[in-house]
Amino acid sequence: MIYLDNSATTRPFEQVIQAMATAQREDFGNPSSLHHLGVMAERKLAAARKQVFAALGARDGSFVFTAGGTEANNLAILGTMLGRIHRKPQVITSKIEHPSVLETVSFLEDLGADCRYVGVDSQGQVDEEEFKTLLSPDTSLVSIMTVNNEIGSVQNISRLAQMTKAASPRALFHTDAVQALGKVPIRVRETGVDLLSVSAHKINGPKGVGGLYIRQGVHVKPILHGGGQENGLRSGTQNTPGILGFSVALELTHSQMQQTTALMETLKKNLMAGLNALPDCRVITPELSAPHVVCAVFPGLKSETLLHALEARGLYVSSGSACSSNKPQLSPTLLAIGCNRKEIDGALRFSLGSFTTQEDIDRALLILQEELALLPRA
Amino acid sequence: MIYLDNSATTRPFEQVIQAMATAQREDFGNPSSLHHLGVMAERKLAAARKQVFAALGARDGSFVFTAGGTEANNLAILGTMLGRIHRKPQVITSKIEHPSVLETVSFLEDLGADCRYVGVDSQGQVDEEEFKTLLSPDTSLVSIMTVNNEIGSVQNISRLAQMTKAASPRALFHTDAVQALGKVPIRVRETGVDLLSVSAHKINGPKGVGGLYIRQGVHVKPILHGGGQENGLRSGTQNTPGILGFSVALELTHSQMQQTTALMETLKKNLMAGLNALPDCRVITPELSAPHVVCAVFPGLKSETLLHALEARGLYVSSGSACSSNKPQLSPTLLAIGCNRKEIDGALRFSLGSFTTQEDIDRALLILQEELALLPRA
Repeated sequence: MIYLDNSATTRPFEQVIQAMATAQREDFGNPSSLHHLGVMAERKLAAARKQVFAALGARDGSFVFTAGGTEANNLAILGTMLGRIHRKPQVITSKIEHPSVLETVSFLEDLGADCRYVGVDSQGQVDEEEFKTLLSPDTSLVSIMTVNNEIGSVQNISRLAQMTKAASPRALFHTDAVQALGKVPIRVRETGVDLLSVSAHKINGPKGVGGLYIRQGVHVKPILHGGGQENGLRSGTQNTPGILGFSVALELTHSQMQQTTALMETLKKNLMAGLNALPDCRVITPELSAPHVVCAVFPGLKSETLLHALEARGLYVSSGSACSSNKPQLSPTLLAIGCNRKEIDGALRFSLGSFTTQEDIDRALLILQEELALLPRA
Repeated sequence: MIYLDNSATTRPFEQVIQAMATAQREDFGNPSSLHHLGVMAERKLAAARKQVFAALGARDGSFVFTAGGTEANNLAILGTMLGRIHRKPQVITSKIEHPSVLETVSFLEDLGADCRYVGVDSQGQVDEEEFKTLLSPDTSLVSIMTVNNEIGSVQNISRLAQMTKAASPRALFHTDAVQALGKVPIRVRETGVDLLSVSAHKINGPKGVGGLYIRQGVHVKPILHGGGQENGLRSGTQNTPGILGFSVALELTHSQMQQTTALMETLKKNLMAGLNALPDCRVITPELSAPHVVCAVFPGLKSETLLHALEARGLYVSSGSACSSNKPQLSPTLLAIGCNRKEIDGALRFSLGSFTTQEDIDRALLILQEELALLPRA
């Protein structure tokens, strides 16, 4: 099996699986319980929180564990804007955000918020001129992802946050860093973001775990109500085994990050070169992009047909944002960077992970070449 | 260790831990991915959904997997009422609900909903006369738990649902069945409920997994927005390993339910007899109660002091609703059944689980007796 769909999800590290099993056997206490078992679980939770905190380059503020990146994005956006919805808050996001941001902003828009969507250039970079025109002293929230999940473009979050604060000092800046974690450096302090979302299952951690960094002084209201866990911000018994698994995945990812991303960069370069050498294949991965995402279009082919031909050979790739690939619609990201319908219909995403090897890439290119020779073009 | 805090959380079955580890190794694909790995994950997800469905006695309708009971309760209440908040919906709940219901209803109330709280008698049974007076043709939603988490009282959900429909045919009836699952029979069809919440970690399943049964024709709006997973009702990559773990826990629980609950009934009876024989201890567990919860008050003692004395001997119990025991406040449930402050201050909950033995109960009673002899009374 050659798994090149790591942006959709990853295989957990064996150490993560083991840590979770151990936690389920030994640290199964409810962190809210007052007795020893609860206190032990609460302590491990606190240690995991501290570790995530450090990994994000945070010093003050808080980190709320959620059930994943989607909940973290919802908490960041709804938790700050829903309470002031009657004042019609001005929210700016980009046209290439993940559905968990786009759909949440669209939900706010339906409720009356003034929502603005900034475009990107052909390289998937936020159009800063347009962004400037959208910003105003009334801007309440800006949400721009650090790394795009479909084409891998990396935004200059620091500059976008600066521009936001310059235009509207009280505006909040949120970034969805789900695809960035472990791939590009994240330093919330230096970058000047107020809110930052991450997810565990994109870095060989467990599914069902993620979280939101909240800068000190930023007021967030909960979207789930109940027992008041996570400092009142996220009710529900904490998923201690999952959170500890996340912590282990993050530790392994960060300790190997330099080597892993250096290898990924090489593999990505080789994959792009190989793809560019194929007939009628255009790599659309931007210059400035994360080390793990390669997007290519095969105009005249249906990406789904190609995907199934490849999977029959044991090669797993994606035909768009895998987080919602059940919903057949033209990728807003590919539309935003100027791809035409024919290109979008024939787009494939190859996403590398911690386990990807040069052999995987060589074999993938060979399979691709052979299958392309067999498939008729429209 | 004698763990009698199973209403707070349980130790997962070894088969659950194994199933999750296997799923993390083999079925780690994103259920939304179109390739084989995704399709396999989606198929296992569908099988788990079908199994939960059958276990709840459901035939039509749907079951949405969530990150736990709290999210399921939030989805049931907010997902049906938030969209009509401007019409000031009339919501009825009881005074002894779990915080994930009470706080969510209170959130609706803050937004302008007409929220009414029905009291209970000394046995923790909903006061049906009062309930009748609160119901009206305008009632939109009733949320009453099946089994109370602190005293174990079991409501006649079928009759309460009938009364609700008789008063307001279009009203929805929701029940929080988190403490009921695996302890008392759940038959959504016969009972006539529209919405029913469950959680995995109370039945020796994983933390971070739960779900909501939704009767066919009941319109629920999502509270988390994004990729549109779970038929649009709960966005976010599904936690397949957790869901499969839940499925295994439910299968084991239901296959052994008759024997387990019969044993629990015996252990509960013995525990209650032993407690009643202690000086100045009053068992307040109602006649009609679930087989796993025993609540007792030790007037003149601080329950926290007693709890810590017991944990020093390896006996783990709870001093109130463990799901929020970090928040020091008088238990609304104990207040509602008429306990006074002194009694509430000295209340302990002993909750049995699948692993509890007669030896545990004997040893627990012995430890309790010895520690009570050492503690000074106020």
